[in-house]
Amino acid sequence: MKNSKPTKRSRSGSTPNGQKLPVAKPNTAIFPKVAVELAEIGKNFYTRGWVLGTSGNFSAVISREPLRLAITSTGLDKGALTPAQFLEIDDAANVVRGEGRPSAEALLHLAIARGVDTGAILHTHSVWSTVLSGSHASQGGIALEGFEMLKGLEGVRTHKHREWLPILENSQDMIELGESVSKTLRESPNIHGFLLKEHGLYTWGVGLQEAKRHVEILEFLMEVLVRAGAAQSA
Amino acid sequence: MKNSKPTKRSRSGSTPNGQKLPVAKPNTAIFPKVAVELAEIGKNFYTRGWVLGTSGNFSAVISREPLRLAITSTGLDKGALTPAQFLEIDDAANVVRGEGRPSAEALLHLAIARGVDTGAILHTHSVWSTVLSGSHASQGGIALEGFEMLKGLEGVRTHKHREWLPILENSQDMIELGESVSKTLRESPNIHGFLLKEHGLYTWGVGLQEAKRHVEILEFLMEVLVRAGAAQSA
Amino acid sequence: MKNSKPTKRSRSGSTPNGQKLPVAKPNTAIFPKVAVELAEIGKNFYTRGWVLGTSGNFSAVISREPLRLAITSTGLDKGALTPAQFLEIDDAANVVRGEGRPSAEALLHLAIARGVDTGAILHTHSVWSTVLSGSHASQGGIALEGFEMLKGLEGVRTHKHREWLPILENSQDMIELGESVSKTLRESPNIHGFLLKEHGLYTWGVGLQEAKRHVEILEFLMEVLVRAGAAQSA
Amino acid sequence: MKNSKPTKRSRSGSTPNGQKLPVAKPNTAIFPKVAVELAEIGKNFYTRGWVLGTSGNFSAVISREPLRLAITSTGLDKGALTPAQFLEIDDAANVVRGEGRPSAEALLHLAIARGVDTGAILHTHSVWSTVLSGSHASQGGIALEGFEMLKGLEGVRTHKHREWLPILENSQDMIELGESVSKTLRESPNIHGFLLKEHGLYTWGVGLQEAKRHVEILEFLMEVLVRAGAAQSA
Repeated sequence: MKNSKPTKRSRSGSTPNGQKLPVAKPNTAIFPKVAVELAEIGKNFYTRGWVLGTSGNFSAVISREPLRLAITSTGLDKGALTPAQFLEIDDAANVVRGEGRPSAEALLHLAIARGVDTGAILHTHSVWSTVLSGSHASQGGIALEGFEMLKGLEGVRTHKHREWLPILENSQDMIELGESVSKTLRESPNIHGFLLKEHGLYTWGVGLQEAKRHVEILEFLMEVLVRAGAAQSA
Repeated sequence: MKNSKPTKRSRSGSTPNGQKLPVAKPNTAIFPKVAVELAEIGKNFYTRGWVLGTSGNFSAVISREPLRLAITSTGLDKGALTPAQFLEIDDAANVVRGEGRPSAEALLHLAIARGVDTGAILHTHSVWSTVLSGSHASQGGIALEGFEMLKGLEGVRTHKHREWLPILENSQDMIELGESVSKTLRESPNIHGFLLKEHGLYTWGVGLQEAKRHVEILEFLMEVLVRAGAAQSA
Repeated sequence: MKNSKPTKRSRSGSTPNGQKLPVAKPNTAIFPKVAVELAEIGKNFYTRGWVLGTSGNFSAVISREPLRLAITSTGLDKGALTPAQFLEIDDAANVVRGEGRPSAEALLHLAIARGVDTGAILHTHSVWSTVLSGSHASQGGIALEGFEMLKGLEGVRTHKHREWLPILENSQDMIELGESVSKTLRESPNIHGFLLKEHGLYTWGVGLQEAKRHVEILEFLMEVLVRAGAAQSA
Repeated sequence: MKNSKPTKRSRSGSTPNGQKLPVAKPNTAIFPKVAVELAEIGKNFYTRGWVLGTSGNFSAVISREPLRLAITSTGLDKGALTPAQFLEIDDAANVVRGEGRPSAEALLHLAIARGVDTGAILHTHSVWSTVLSGSHASQGGIALEGFEMLKGLEGVRTHKHREWLPILENSQDMIELGESVSKTLRESPNIHGFLLKEHGLYTWGVGLQEAKRHVEILEFLMEVLVRAGAAQSA
């Protein structure tokens, strides 16, 4: 996949000359509903300071066989996000529905969608994640342990849980960064998210509500660490 | 009580075979109104960052003889809390009205309702309480003294008052933790709240407005301590 | 005045036996309009975290000869403040219009109204003022200098202005504290506000908008000082 | 220009005796629309704490030949900003449309409009910029480097970009300060903004949305630096 070049295809998933492809046609009828929900979450995140400038992007899996994501197009002010600004992309990041170009980081969303069993992927750029991913980069990640709030992460049953939040080196080469993401997910299949250094958080969930909850919880815990002095003592 | 296993009972408070119990039937006609007020407070607290993820729970005493609480069911997004998500529980945490399962922490609400003369109990998970309950855990609590804001706590008449905010070790064993709460309330009957380590605040009031005021005041004072550097110097 | 005990009088300003007093009857027809404006400001301040719990109180001079203030009654949740919760008081803090009891701090409002040529007096309890008035109490005040924002204080024309924000020892004896306020205003007639230690800010203006602006500016500058590390290095 | 004294002229751009001037008449028909957009942004910035008191001012270029700006009049509460509070000024800061006096800082807006190819200029007074412009003044500026968020600045393609945010000494002499701004822009034509010491941020963009995005990004990065401890270690 990583060598495929994104090419514009018709919305019906057919070839340019109109012949049906032999692969199964994905059922992505939920796209409009998902776009509404993602736009709502994006605007909410903007007011919370998590996706300022044109930062952040959001996606949801709307088909698994073949893989299809609903995803924000690139370069948007998330404070004015609308459902019409979402695209449907295939597993090579080609646009198969909607107008616009997907974010270069669409390749990271696809890497996550392939690497974990997830239905929604949210990427935020908060002050807290920027601070901590810088201060802890040399340690390769941040350990979150002892906090009751950890129980809000799917599958966690006790505050004694130790959550490892890996920090990946940032890069503008999305193919390289996508491989780094895939490798991280293979090596640490139980993580709930990761940071890109001085960039932000990626987290996910089986559904959009779970993914949103994971953003809230991880952002909360990062704020706790910074306020408790972790950035200074790292 | 602590050995009783919660069992599902019919809504009428009768035994499974339909016979009326000999105990007095509680008058809990205020339940619907209380559920509306608790839901309103819960949503407000969410916007203030005090009950993110699925954290926090809220209850009100709607009958004393026998003891009945209106309480949030478990695992809810407090940003979308509705009156229909409240349950009526008896003094063994059995659900006697409403759909859903009470939070495991219902046992702590019951321990507080038995230990102090209170009408409402609010539990929040703020950043400030998480930071301070961690930094001051080894001291067993936090002393709040000299602040005019203390006068907002019921019965306090001067800023020279010294309020002790105990920090209890966190646990997932609610029976053990409930006993720890009961013991704390017996030993320190004049406290207005306590912290669970790296978990959050419990406070209460004779009515819902007083309990809400106590949350505001204790959260305010914890924020003051953290911003004044208390977490670093503890 | 300081020995006079506040007594309930009839709304018309007459003596209990119905005889008109020989003093001029104040024209306080603007009271209803002022109460609406003060309530609006109070609710706004609540959302900004400046008057949590039941803290804070607000007044406006509605007559100078004789002195009459519109002022919040005591013990209110400022998040739900209404015009009906304001009282008209005379220069001995007697209620001459409205239901309720004035705050004990009404005596401080009166001391300020007598000491400076002002039309509105606002008292807030922010986190920043609580922190700084504690950390700088031994220095007797805080110097604000070099900030462009100072130019928003009435009469200040340059950022090189040095504003002295005195810190008074807090007390529950309002007569003593009122004298302390009067003395401060005699000695430093050009100040724009003062702090009570670990209590909060008093500031004022010729009108309500100016007083509100002074709150914003002084709160802003105190936040700047705390974030720049002033509380730790004091 | 710097010696010209602003004089009140008639709205039509004609001389006092009604004769048409020989210079081209600027087409500033977009003024009403721009005033609406600037007022909207100003109110939004107020709620974010960036233009408290009467601080901050906003302008847009509505004609280049000859130069005309839409700009806030002086001394306004930005929380209640209306389109009617904007003025049209010429390149000597004379008012050619609207009621009121332009801010003294109009001369800085004009210096920026002449120095860079921009359509909108926004000036904010945040806590973060006040803190950092004080702590880093002796270094002459602040280096922003390594942050993904930098990519939101126009023309920046990688987080490895090093953005230099100059800090100019503050002054009440706007002619002197305007020259300092012009000199800075000549020497560093690629900057996206600058700070005035303990005063605030000036930034700009080809359009209003770009300028607003630059405010968000620079404010975000300054907050990151302060929270990471930069103000203490400078």
